[in-house]
Amino acid sequence: MVAMKLPQLHNDTFLRACLRQPTDHTPVWLMRQAGRYLPEYRATRATAGSFMGLATNPGYATEVTLQPLDRYALDAAILFSDILTVPDAMGLGLSFAQGEGPRFARPLKDEADVARLEVPDMEKLRYVFDAVASIRRALVTDVGGVKAGRVPLIGFSGSPWTLACYMVEGGGSDDYRLVKTMMYSRPDLMHRILAVNADAVAAYLNAQIEAGAQAVMVFDSWGGVLADGAFQRFSLAYTERVLRQLKKEHEGCRIPHIVFTKGGGLWLDAIAATGCDVVGLDWTVNLGQARARIGDRVALQGNLDPNVLFAPPEAIRAEVEATLQSYGPPSAGSGHVFNLGHGISQFTPPDHVTVLVDAVHEISRRQRLAAA
Amino acid sequence: MVAMKLPQLHNDTFLRACLRQPTDHTPVWLMRQAGRYLPEYRATRATAGSFMGLATNPGYATEVTLQPLDRYALDAAILFSDILTVPDAMGLGLSFAQGEGPRFARPLKDEADVARLEVPDMEKLRYVFDAVASIRRALVTDVGGVKAGRVPLIGFSGSPWTLACYMVEGGGSDDYRLVKTMMYSRPDLMHRILAVNADAVAAYLNAQIEAGAQAVMVFDSWGGVLADGAFQRFSLAYTERVLRQLKKEHEGCRIPHIVFTKGGGLWLDAIAATGCDVVGLDWTVNLGQARARIGDRVALQGNLDPNVLFAPPEAIRAEVEATLQSYGPPSAGSGHVFNLGHGISQFTPPDHVTVLVDAVHEISRRQRLAAA
Repeated sequence: MVAMKLPQLHNDTFLRACLRQPTDHTPVWLMRQAGRYLPEYRATRATAGSFMGLATNPGYATEVTLQPLDRYALDAAILFSDILTVPDAMGLGLSFAQGEGPRFARPLKDEADVARLEVPDMEKLRYVFDAVASIRRALVTDVGGVKAGRVPLIGFSGSPWTLACYMVEGGGSDDYRLVKTMMYSRPDLMHRILAVNADAVAAYLNAQIEAGAQAVMVFDSWGGVLADGAFQRFSLAYTERVLRQLKKEHEGCRIPHIVFTKGGGLWLDAIAATGCDVVGLDWTVNLGQARARIGDRVALQGNLDPNVLFAPPEAIRAEVEATLQSYGPPSAGSGHVFNLGHGISQFTPPDHVTVLVDAVHEISRRQRLAAA
Repeated sequence: MVAMKLPQLHNDTFLRACLRQPTDHTPVWLMRQAGRYLPEYRATRATAGSFMGLATNPGYATEVTLQPLDRYALDAAILFSDILTVPDAMGLGLSFAQGEGPRFARPLKDEADVARLEVPDMEKLRYVFDAVASIRRALVTDVGGVKAGRVPLIGFSGSPWTLACYMVEGGGSDDYRLVKTMMYSRPDLMHRILAVNADAVAAYLNAQIEAGAQAVMVFDSWGGVLADGAFQRFSLAYTERVLRQLKKEHEGCRIPHIVFTKGGGLWLDAIAATGCDVVGLDWTVNLGQARARIGDRVALQGNLDPNVLFAPPEAIRAEVEATLQSYGPPSAGSGHVFNLGHGISQFTPPDHVTVLVDAVHEISRRQRLAAA
């Protein structure tokens, strides 16, 4: 093991919190922070012509990734992309119809479809790695004569199970009937899909790390729809297979691994035991209880209900304070990254995000002073 | 307190399990067991012309309530109705568009709408109580010269919070933005809606009990979308307000109270502490762990993933066995009612339900013999 250092950054608070090192405030970023609630995003999106036009063009992807950082004092950037780029590279044909969710032209319907599935050539995802490299370059600024990144850049992927949901359903679902029918009827086929997905996701995230991602996150958005038992076998086992293959460091710097299972609050111990550095939590989880259970082994990320952002500023500040108090004051070996418990809504008033971000910084600084 | 007896029934296994008394098999019924997956239901529905035509006619409601009992060896009947009858009686104008979910013509939009809200005259819900009485009469059969009900009849209502979701959103939702915006912005309005709902639901369930319901269930279908903290204040507190007002007995017989919070697995202790007799569980909960936590205070109901019913018979039997083993063998003061973790899918093959019901009975009898 080489001696690990933190990368050169003007603000490395996010990475420190992920690695459970002391920080002078609680870092904050928001899932889907580059997105439709921002008028500047909608303008770039209109120029690009489509969501995939935006995601596949490193110039546009860089532009929209940086937009929320120019507005808000966020402590991390996250690559602008989609969780479904990997199955698209596998040949399933991803598209986004206007006003609807993602669709695959060629979902996995039968044994022959599953048999054909392979880890895609990572060259097909070159546009993602180019975007990562481009964003890293764009993040470099000069502060007091020191050139360094403003904040770290997070790369990401969907989890093997979450990708499989879309690959079998052909898009979003409200009952997961097709994917669960395959899982309960032909577990052998489901295990093959998940094994291919896991190896593809690992290669994809490693390539993002090599291109410049300074932390990586696995979104298990649909892990929480699984039954107890099935979650461990069909989702968590393959998230672990991804994590086992992931680079833990790059150019001498530690790369934190974040796992977020929406609806995974009942399985926190098992998720923390995967070997990840950070566990993402949705708003149903009591942050203080989660810290007591797993907070000495992993950092926690979350977990405000995105709908709080529709309330007036005073109510937003009160909810931020309640969340920070629920986690409690920092202690040696603990770490908290403030976030929403799910992606920000497209209907969010942009000014309310300012209130949220500033409240996290202000209240968490005050909390540290009071505890000192 | 009068001495409590069980009602005269040919099969009282369900009530015994609810009250944690010994049974010779694990009773089973299925949420939404009278429904679209049955061809005979679709035929009656076509004759009635619409869902509300079916639900508001005691004759049709009786007919469809009994259909699954004629096909399967179910241990309980559940009133055929909808969870939204109460807000309809409040004047919100319920309808079901073909192929879509419920809609309210007059959702609660502002302070004036909320101020006008009142507990409705229960006479407007007479059609429900008439259906309950009619079903009870229809359930009476003669076995060996003894006239008694075949199985007990369960009455039900939506929870105050779940009703409020529909009343504010005007229908289903995937983000609960409107109802949560009101909750976080104007908690005073939300508390008024919930208080009126709780008192209305209590009156509604008590009238069902007087009409002949032998157990009642509160469906908190959307409790699990709330943040920790908000769930306790905006959902559970009002479910408790319902339970405090409910009749615990009728004509000398105990009336078990069941509370089912979809996605409520993180709050089982609090739900068990409401004073209910039975806690319903969805499939994300480990039944054995739930029993260890609360199984000495309440009976448990659940919790197979409805999608298991799309698997072949052998896989269904294996999942039933795993569920029964997870709960474990019966012991003094414990009780388990087998059910799905959510309503049965309209796409379920009816023959697969036979496999499920028979497997529950057969395996649970074998389990008792092995433990004896």
